Amino acid sequence: MGNTFGHLFRITTWGESHGGGVGVVVDGCPPGVALSEADIQPDLDRRRPGQSSITTPRKETDTVHILSGVFEGRTLGTPISMMVRNEDFRPEAYGEMATKFRPSHADYTYQAKYGHRAWPGGGRTSARETIGRVAAGALARKILRERWGVDVLACVTRVQDIECAVDPETFLARDAEANAIRCPDPETAARMVDLIERRRGEGDSVGGIVLGVARGVPTGWGEPVFDRLEADLAKAMLSLPASKGFDVGSGFGGLGLTGLQHNDAFRSVDGRVRTVTNRSGGIQGGISNGETIYFRVAFKPVATVMHEQDTVDVQLQNTTLKGRGRHDPCVLPRAVPMVEAMTALVLVDHALRHEAQCGRTAWKGA
Amino acid sequence: MGNTFGHLFRITTWGESHGGGVGVVVDGCPPGVALSEADIQPDLDRRRPGQSSITTPRKETDTVHILSGVFEGRTLGTPISMMVRNEDFRPEAYGEMATKFRPSHADYTYQAKYGHRAWPGGGRTSARETIGRVAAGALARKILRERWGVDVLACVTRVQDIECAVDPETFLARDAEANAIRCPDPETAARMVDLIERRRGEGDSVGGIVLGVARGVPTGWGEPVFDRLEADLAKAMLSLPASKGFDVGSGFGGLGLTGLQHNDAFRSVDGRVRTVTNRSGGIQGGISNGETIYFRVAFKPVATVMHEQDTVDVQLQNTTLKGRGRHDPCVLPRAVPMVEAMTALVLVDHALRHEAQCGRTAWKGA
Amino acid sequence: MGNTFGHLFRITTWGESHGGGVGVVVDGCPPGVALSEADIQPDLDRRRPGQSSITTPRKETDTVHILSGVFEGRTLGTPISMMVRNEDFRPEAYGEMATKFRPSHADYTYQAKYGHRAWPGGGRTSARETIGRVAAGALARKILRERWGVDVLACVTRVQDIECAVDPETFLARDAEANAIRCPDPETAARMVDLIERRRGEGDSVGGIVLGVARGVPTGWGEPVFDRLEADLAKAMLSLPASKGFDVGSGFGGLGLTGLQHNDAFRSVDGRVRTVTNRSGGIQGGISNGETIYFRVAFKPVATVMHEQDTVDVQLQNTTLKGRGRHDPCVLPRAVPMVEAMTALVLVDHALRHEAQCGRTAWKGA
Amino acid sequence: MGNTFGHLFRITTWGESHGGGVGVVVDGCPPGVALSEADIQPDLDRRRPGQSSITTPRKETDTVHILSGVFEGRTLGTPISMMVRNEDFRPEAYGEMATKFRPSHADYTYQAKYGHRAWPGGGRTSARETIGRVAAGALARKILRERWGVDVLACVTRVQDIECAVDPETFLARDAEANAIRCPDPETAARMVDLIERRRGEGDSVGGIVLGVARGVPTGWGEPVFDRLEADLAKAMLSLPASKGFDVGSGFGGLGLTGLQHNDAFRSVDGRVRTVTNRSGGIQGGISNGETIYFRVAFKPVATVMHEQDTVDVQLQNTTLKGRGRHDPCVLPRAVPMVEAMTALVLVDHALRHEAQCGRTAWKGA
Repeated sequence: MGNTFGHLFRITTWGESHGGGVGVVVDGCPPGVALSEADIQPDLDRRRPGQSSITTPRKETDTVHILSGVFEGRTLGTPISMMVRNEDFRPEAYGEMATKFRPSHADYTYQAKYGHRAWPGGGRTSARETIGRVAAGALARKILRERWGVDVLACVTRVQDIECAVDPETFLARDAEANAIRCPDPETAARMVDLIERRRGEGDSVGGIVLGVARGVPTGWGEPVFDRLEADLAKAMLSLPASKGFDVGSGFGGLGLTGLQHNDAFRSVDGRVRTVTNRSGGIQGGISNGETIYFRVAFKPVATVMHEQDTVDVQLQNTTLKGRGRHDPCVLPRAVPMVEAMTALVLVDHALRHEAQCGRTAWKGA
Repeated sequence: MGNTFGHLFRITTWGESHGGGVGVVVDGCPPGVALSEADIQPDLDRRRPGQSSITTPRKETDTVHILSGVFEGRTLGTPISMMVRNEDFRPEAYGEMATKFRPSHADYTYQAKYGHRAWPGGGRTSARETIGRVAAGALARKILRERWGVDVLACVTRVQDIECAVDPETFLARDAEANAIRCPDPETAARMVDLIERRRGEGDSVGGIVLGVARGVPTGWGEPVFDRLEADLAKAMLSLPASKGFDVGSGFGGLGLTGLQHNDAFRSVDGRVRTVTNRSGGIQGGISNGETIYFRVAFKPVATVMHEQDTVDVQLQNTTLKGRGRHDPCVLPRAVPMVEAMTALVLVDHALRHEAQCGRTAWKGA
Repeated sequence: MGNTFGHLFRITTWGESHGGGVGVVVDGCPPGVALSEADIQPDLDRRRPGQSSITTPRKETDTVHILSGVFEGRTLGTPISMMVRNEDFRPEAYGEMATKFRPSHADYTYQAKYGHRAWPGGGRTSARETIGRVAAGALARKILRERWGVDVLACVTRVQDIECAVDPETFLARDAEANAIRCPDPETAARMVDLIERRRGEGDSVGGIVLGVARGVPTGWGEPVFDRLEADLAKAMLSLPASKGFDVGSGFGGLGLTGLQHNDAFRSVDGRVRTVTNRSGGIQGGISNGETIYFRVAFKPVATVMHEQDTVDVQLQNTTLKGRGRHDPCVLPRAVPMVEAMTALVLVDHALRHEAQCGRTAWKGA
Repeated sequence: MGNTFGHLFRITTWGESHGGGVGVVVDGCPPGVALSEADIQPDLDRRRPGQSSITTPRKETDTVHILSGVFEGRTLGTPISMMVRNEDFRPEAYGEMATKFRPSHADYTYQAKYGHRAWPGGGRTSARETIGRVAAGALARKILRERWGVDVLACVTRVQDIECAVDPETFLARDAEANAIRCPDPETAARMVDLIERRRGEGDSVGGIVLGVARGVPTGWGEPVFDRLEADLAKAMLSLPASKGFDVGSGFGGLGLTGLQHNDAFRSVDGRVRTVTNRSGGIQGGISNGETIYFRVAFKPVATVMHEQDTVDVQLQNTTLKGRGRHDPCVLPRAVPMVEAMTALVLVDHALRHEAQCGRTAWKGA
C-alpha cells in the first residue's frame, strides 16, 4: 500500500532496483495535452546517475517509454503508463546486502515489516523508485505551465555547512542548472562541489537543503483543513528518500520574530490583493494567496559510506559492513528534479480540486 | 473537500467558530473499545481556551457529547460521532472582520477561494476546528495505549528565542503538564511564561516549537513509498493551524554531519535489533524501526496582535485593522494536545494498515 | 469503515436507531449554494415513518438541523453537518432482539463481525441510517437542478406480483406522489395499496421494484473504467437496505434480443447526437450520452413479519422469534426518496469529477 | 480517473487496444505469496480471443510479464506490475471508426467527454482493458484459496432465450470449462453454442447471464453502510464492459414472494449458525453470513454486428456503418473469467479490511 499519490491527478509508481523496470501510471490527466517522450526525458536525465562528477557513476540511460494514454501526440484522458527498463545489473556487487542490514538504510525495516525483501540494489527502497515520480512530475509541470502559467523550480541552497541565501522570487533555473550541484550562486556552487569531492575522497557523504519554489500559482488552491497546500507539500517532500524536514515561508527561521514583526501586511496593487512581505510563503490557511510559494527540504547525508560500520545480520548476529560499489556522495543535485516533480504533482492535483468545487463560484476579487 | 484524514481509521471534522457547534465522525474504529465522554474530555480540557494565564480568556467549557457508535460503554465498529456545542458568541466583537482581511490570517484566501466566508470568529479557520481532531485523537491514543502499549506525548521546547533541550526518550508528560506552557523543564518554562506575558503586555505574540514523541511503536508501521510514516506525520502537523515546519529525528539539525557521523549503527540487544543512536527518529525508509519516534513542529507567532496593521478590505481598498478582543498570545500550550492527537491518528491508522497487509506474514525477527 | 460515499462530493453518515441521533457530513459542496433546512425537510418527510396508511405508524418528526457549512443562507464550501435527533424510544418493545437473531436481518452478521451490537431497533442497520443519505441527497438534487438542469426522480413500478409499465421519459413526479405507494399509475397504485394492506393484515410483507430516473444529464459524466456511471449507481442502489438487484436501460429484460435488435442507432437532431431508442439507459461505455438515465432497483419483502420463525440465539441455541411492534409491511414508498437521494449523490459527484478533468477540453460537438 | 479499484488490495489498470500494451499495478498485496507468471497465465488464456469456435478469431497470445513486486518467487508487499504487450495490429480494418460512431459502443461518449479518442480497436473501451483485471484477479483468487479456503467461480446460465438452472452450491468448474460457452450443463451448453453460431452466421450477436459464486467465505466480510459486500460486487460487475444488470441471492426473482416465504430461517448446526435456505445469497446487511455467495450478471448482446446501421459521424452528419472484421458474437464465455476476477478482487479487499478493523475482536461464535 501507499504507492499512490494524489486525489484527482493521481499517480501510482512501481518497480524495484533490479526487476523488469520501474514505472508510473498517471490517472486523471486532462485530455488533449500534447505529450511525447521528449517532454519527459529531460527531467529524467536531470535525475539519472552518471550525469556529473559528483553523482554515482552508475550507467543508466533511463529511457522512458509511454505505453498508453496518448494517441496522435495528445493525451486521451485515460491512464498514462510510463516505464523505464532496468539496466546495468550487478547484483554480485551487493552480495553482503543479502544478509546484513545497512545502517540508516531501510533494509532492516523492510525485512521486519514484510518478512521478505529484494536485497539487490535496495529493491523498492532504491532511488530508482523516484523515476516514476519524476516522469509524472514532468507531465504535471507541463500542464501547470501551459494551463495556468505556473513555474515550478528548485535548487540547492546548502551542502553540509556551506549555505547561501537564494531569493525564491528571482533566482533562475538556468543558473542552478549551470553547475553540477544545482546551486544558482556559482561561487557557492564551486565550494559545494569541492566539499562533496573531498567527502567522497574520504569515503564519506553529505546532506543539505533543497529550496522548492512555485511562481505564478493563482489564489485559491488548497483544501482545508487536512489537505492544506503546505500539508500536502510536506507529505510529498517527506515521502522522498533521505528527506528529514520541511518548512514553508519563514518556517523554523521565523520563530525568533513576534507576531507584529512576522505578519504579512496586505496592500491593494493594480486591483489585486498582494502581501508586502511573504513570510507566509504564498499560503495562508492552507490556500495559496497568489504570492510565490517557497519551502525548504532537508536531506540527510547519504547513508552508504565506504567505512566499516557496526550492524546486525538477518540471524540477528552483530557484525560489520563496509559500503562498496558506486554511490552518490550527496543526493542533492539529483533531489532537485524530485522536489520539482512532487511540487508539480501536488499543485496540479489541487488545481483540479479547486476547479471542481469552486470553478464556477470563486470570488471575482481574487 | 479535504476534511477527512486517515485511510482505515478515518476522521471527518466539521464546524465553524460561530455555528451550531463543531465535531468529528470517526469511521473504522475497532469494535469493543471501552469508551465514554470521560475518555475524551481531558484532552479537550487541555486544548480549550481559558485554562491558564497565558491562553485566551474566552470562556468555553467545550463539553463533548458522543452521539453514536458506542453501546453499553463499548464501541460498535460503526461511526462515532462526537460534538461540542458552540457557546459564548460575541460576533459584535468582530465587526470589522466582516469587511477587512486580517494580515497573515486566512480571511483573504477563504474569500478568494470560496467567494463567501463566515467571518465571525474566523469561521472554519478558527482554532475551534481542532476540537474534532483532539476528540478523535483522544480515542486514538487510548487504542494505541491499550492495544499496542504505545505512548504518544508532546511538549513545548521553544518559545521565540527561549529554547531548551528535551530528551524525547525520557521526558515525563507530568513535568510538561505541570506548568502553563507545557515545557518539561521548570526553569525554562518559567522564562517562557514570563516572555509570553511580556509580549501580551505589548499587544504582541510569539511562536515556537512543539516536540512530538511516540514511544513503544513496534517495528513495521508505515507504508512506502508515499505514505511513509514521516510523510503522514508531516502532513498531519502541517495541517495544524499556524504550523510552518516539521522535521523528524536529526532533521535540519543533522545537516552539518557527514554520513559516517550521522548513521545509526545497529546492534543486537536481547534478541532485538536496536540502533545505537537514534538520528533516524525511529523511522527508516518510511517504516518504524522500534526506536522512539520524535519530531519537531514549528508554530509561527499568533497573527492577531493589538496593533494597527496595513490591510485591504473586500472592496480591495487599502485600510488598516487593529486586533481586538480575547486572543492567545502564544498558541503553543494549546498546540500540545493537537500534536498528540494528530500523531495518534497517524499511528493508529498505520497500525491497522500494517496489520491488514502484513499481519500474518511479518518477520519473526522483528 | 465504509460509511463514506463519493469522491468529490463526499458524504459520511453516522448514527444508530436509538443513540443520540443520526446525521451526515457533506464535504466538497460548492460554495454559494442557497441552503436552509427548508430545502432538506421535504425529502425527509417523504422518507419518514408514519406518513401514510401503509408505512409503519412509528411517530418520528425527523426534523433536520444544519449545524455547519452554511452562513447567511449560503453554503461556505466547508463541511455541512446535518443532524436529526432520535425520538420515540421504546427499547423494551425489542427485548428479545437482545439475544435472538431476526431471520434475514443483519443481527447475526453484525454480532459475528463486530462481536458487539446495538440491538435496540437494529442499531446501525435500522432504516434510520438512511436519513443522512436523504438529507445529503436533497442538497445534491438542488445543485443538479440549479446548476445543470438535471431532474432526479423515482417511483414504484412493482409490488410483489403487481406491476405496471412506466415510461422513464415522461412520468410525472406529482403522479407518483399522489398516492401512498408512489406509483404514477393511479389504478395500479390502488391495487398495490390493497395488496400491501392485505399482507399486513396477514402479518406478512412484500417487496417490489423502484424505477430511478435522471433527466437532462449532459453528455460526458462518468469515469471509466471502474467508476462507470452505471457502476457507481449500482453500488449506490445495492448499498440501500433490502435492495437485491439493479439493472440499467434494457437490463435483464433486453437479453432476449439480438445485437441488431438491441442497438441504439444514432441520429443527428438539431445539431445534437441523439439515439433513436434508449436501451442503453442513457449511459454508454460508462459515460452519460445525453439521453434519459433510467434503472430498476429490486427491494426484497420486508424481513420483519408477525409470525413465529425458526432462529438461533447468541448462545447458538435453536429457538423461535415472532415479530412485534410497528413495522413497514413494504419498504417501497419510503425507498423512493432514498433511490432519488443516492442517484443525485452519484450524479453530482460525477459532474464535479467531469468538470475537474475535462471541464476545459470537452468536445464542442457534445 | 476511475481506473483504480479497491481500498486495501488496490488495482490500477492501463492500456488501449492498440498502444504499447495493457497492464495493471496491484498495490497492497500481502508479502510472501508464491507467485509467478504460471499463476496468472491460465486465467488470461481463458479470457483471450481465439480460444474456441465461438469467440473472435483474433490471434493474441496475451502473454503476461511480471515486472515488479516479486523476488525469488514470492511477493514483496510492494506494487506488482503486470503487463501484456499488444500484438496483431490491424488499424486499417477499423478505418471508418476514425470518423463514425459505432451504435451502442462508447465511441460517441468518449469523443464527447474527452474531445479526443483512440479510435483504433476502440482504444480504452476495448475488451483488452480487462486483461489487467483478469491478471490481478488470478492473484486475488490464489490468495483467497490459500489463505481462507475461498473458491471463486462463475459460469454461463443463459444465452439469449436459452437458460438453465444451475445450483450455485454444487456446480463444478470443470463442467463449465468442458465446453466453449462455459455452461456446466452439457445439453444446454450445446444448444447455446448452436445458437451463437447461428447468430454469427446471420451477422448478429447475443447476450446472456453469468452466474458468479464464492464458496467458503467466512462470516464477517463487508463494510456497511456504503461498502456493503453486495454493493461492491454490484459496482465491480457493472464496471465490466457490456454488463447491464446485477442481482444477488433471490434478486429480481424473489420479488413474487412474501416476507414469510422469503426469509432464511437460522439453525444452529455443529456449533455454527447456518441458514436453512439461502435467498440472502450469503450476505445479510452487507456482511457475509458464511453461506455461499451467488449473484447474476446480465451482459447485453454484442454491439458490433455485420449489418448496416444508422449512425452519426464526428461532423454530426447522419450516415451508416457496417461492422467488419473479427468480433465475438457473444461475450459470455470470455466474461466468465472477468466475473471471477472482479469477484475475487472485491473479496480479498474486504477480507483485508475486515482483518484490519475486526481481526482481534470478532465474535467467537462466528
